[in-house]
Amino acid sequence: MKVAVLGFGTIGFGVYRMLEASPGLEPGPVLVREGKKKEPFQVTSLQEILDDPGVGAVVEVMGGVEPAFTYARETLRSGRHFVTANKALVAVRGLELAAEARQSGAAFLFGAACGGGVPLLHNLALAVKTDEIRSVSGILNGTTNYMLHAMQTRGMNYDSALREAQTLGYAEADPTADVTGMDAARKIALACAVAYGLLPEGGLDCEGIDHLSARDVADFQSRGLTCRLIARGVPAGGTVAAYVEPVLFGAAAPECSVTDNYNMARYEGRFSGPMVFMGQGAGRYPTASSVLRDLSGIQAGQRAMLPPDCAAVQADNDRESHAYYVRLGADRAADLPVDRLLSQGETVRVITKPISVHQMHVYARKERRAGRELFFAAVEG
Amino acid sequence: MKVAVLGFGTIGFGVYRMLEASPGLEPGPVLVREGKKKEPFQVTSLQEILDDPGVGAVVEVMGGVEPAFTYARETLRSGRHFVTANKALVAVRGLELAAEARQSGAAFLFGAACGGGVPLLHNLALAVKTDEIRSVSGILNGTTNYMLHAMQTRGMNYDSALREAQTLGYAEADPTADVTGMDAARKIALACAVAYGLLPEGGLDCEGIDHLSARDVADFQSRGLTCRLIARGVPAGGTVAAYVEPVLFGAAAPECSVTDNYNMARYEGRFSGPMVFMGQGAGRYPTASSVLRDLSGIQAGQRAMLPPDCAAVQADNDRESHAYYVRLGADRAADLPVDRLLSQGETVRVITKPISVHQMHVYARKERRAGRELFFAAVEG
Repeated sequence: MKVAVLGFGTIGFGVYRMLEASPGLEPGPVLVREGKKKEPFQVTSLQEILDDPGVGAVVEVMGGVEPAFTYARETLRSGRHFVTANKALVAVRGLELAAEARQSGAAFLFGAACGGGVPLLHNLALAVKTDEIRSVSGILNGTTNYMLHAMQTRGMNYDSALREAQTLGYAEADPTADVTGMDAARKIALACAVAYGLLPEGGLDCEGIDHLSARDVADFQSRGLTCRLIARGVPAGGTVAAYVEPVLFGAAAPECSVTDNYNMARYEGRFSGPMVFMGQGAGRYPTASSVLRDLSGIQAGQRAMLPPDCAAVQADNDRESHAYYVRLGADRAADLPVDRLLSQGETVRVITKPISVHQMHVYARKERRAGRELFFAAVEG
Repeated sequence: MKVAVLGFGTIGFGVYRMLEASPGLEPGPVLVREGKKKEPFQVTSLQEILDDPGVGAVVEVMGGVEPAFTYARETLRSGRHFVTANKALVAVRGLELAAEARQSGAAFLFGAACGGGVPLLHNLALAVKTDEIRSVSGILNGTTNYMLHAMQTRGMNYDSALREAQTLGYAEADPTADVTGMDAARKIALACAVAYGLLPEGGLDCEGIDHLSARDVADFQSRGLTCRLIARGVPAGGTVAAYVEPVLFGAAAPECSVTDNYNMARYEGRFSGPMVFMGQGAGRYPTASSVLRDLSGIQAGQRAMLPPDCAAVQADNDRESHAYYVRLGADRAADLPVDRLLSQGETVRVITKPISVHQMHVYARKERRAGRELFFAAVEG
């Protein structure tokens, strides 16, 4: 199968190289921006690709919703399979594209859009056919995991950890989407769509690591706990609970062994029990290998990751509850149902009684809007 | 698709129940032994199944090479898909069955035969199409992992850990295949066949946990190390190195977070980098969920796990080498290239310089034949 590629950045180049090396697949034309054409295999308009009757599938690795959506729709309408690594595209226009794909009989797969090289969506899409998924969660952002690991194993403060991640190319110049948890939130939304047929378009609560200090790290490490940024999605009475927040784990948890910029994803099936996947969450070849996995799936007959009745919903995080570790001003502790006071002073650290995820996130947002600083993390188990 | 089931034990019952619950799949006739027929859906001969034109696939969960092989061959010759959880069958007659399947166009899949519920073979079979697998390894035997975890977290001795595993149904009355590593060896042979197209039929070196004492556990735990029984297969100049042995890991390794009777498998792809999978390695529904994953794969068009040119080979463990932790008689230590002496006395504990896997295993077998006791484990990293 000849495969065209839209975009020739880090991932696009990796996909091209892997297509060259894979029996049964071959690289077709590569779409680059006007004025960027340097190689004979590069083209500057989608039409040139769709005019090539040999092209059987199109891979999109440009990022952004437009023009990616228009290209995707035209590709699917032409009857070609469409594979993307673009989480924003799938989160915002995925349901439309899935409908286009069903209409034309073409495949629409996006395994690389959640977890990079980790085959979460592929395995989830297969599992839902015969199992009932009860939860999906994971470390879905490699940038923040790299920073957390650096802060926890090398005593770095937040700013140095971020600068190091930027120097290594793990964090972008504007790291907002990573450090606030937005990137992980988009990914867990896609996992919910595949696992439950429910795509949360709003209502996700999202706490990143941007309020974490080196003193917080020293404190919870002294208690034998390790912090990871966890995205989680579970069914909640016709909709889903979907949220991102720091979580503190005891030493035995597999999450603690996820180092550097690795990702981990897990799901719990009614029949399969808990399943855990770890691997590279980003990078040229790990991400490209996920794109190629989708292409192999297409060759084996796979056509969809989203269930045909997949619907957009508002997330509801009121029914999920955890005990939280919270660092806040001593005068504010009475706001929360404190179970244990861990440390005293002007700033206190407490463990709350179990409270709803939404309540915790709303409280933190309200406090910060009022200019008061706090850090919180769910306590696992 | 109507699916017949050969065998109605723990797994067979689980497969039957999952078939009832899965849209697009339905349970067909179930083969039980003569005199065991109790339900109208049960039959006592394969012919009754093959005479039913509605049956599209047959699942075999009886175990043993015969009559499973004859049933498999007849099933494939009738054009029906064949799915098995039977590692002995695939290890001994898998290449013949794959050839029968290719000839008839039917599928021959065996995901549940390695790793139970852990989707190692499924993901490997997909990965090999576009990636080059550089190693496969894992904790592939839940019984011994349960025992190791009990000995290491609860200070149990070997005999009590074994009795507890038997009481819980994790170990059989005759636990030989589990505790000697034979069960894990059969599974890694299947993983090599899928990953490299090379099925090691002989030459596997196999060291279990049956020489491990509570004092060994106390000693390596005092050094911050955790023991796991690891099966490993890597390409080795036209053949494979394939072996099972205890391995000692530092606390940060994901292997340390594999508790109770869980399994873990990993592979390293040239493009994907390291990939890790964890889940339940055995049990009714985890294993049945793996069988159902294969059936979903068939519905999506998958036909084979073994590459068409898969060949039987003799394993060669001479090129792989590790440093080993060895407990042996003080008078024997001069036999090994000792790098560090850990403890002295009548019995000594040493870390060797790197030596070949085959050399270490041969030495241990020779010593034991001469009536001398020793324990060894590779040291990771």
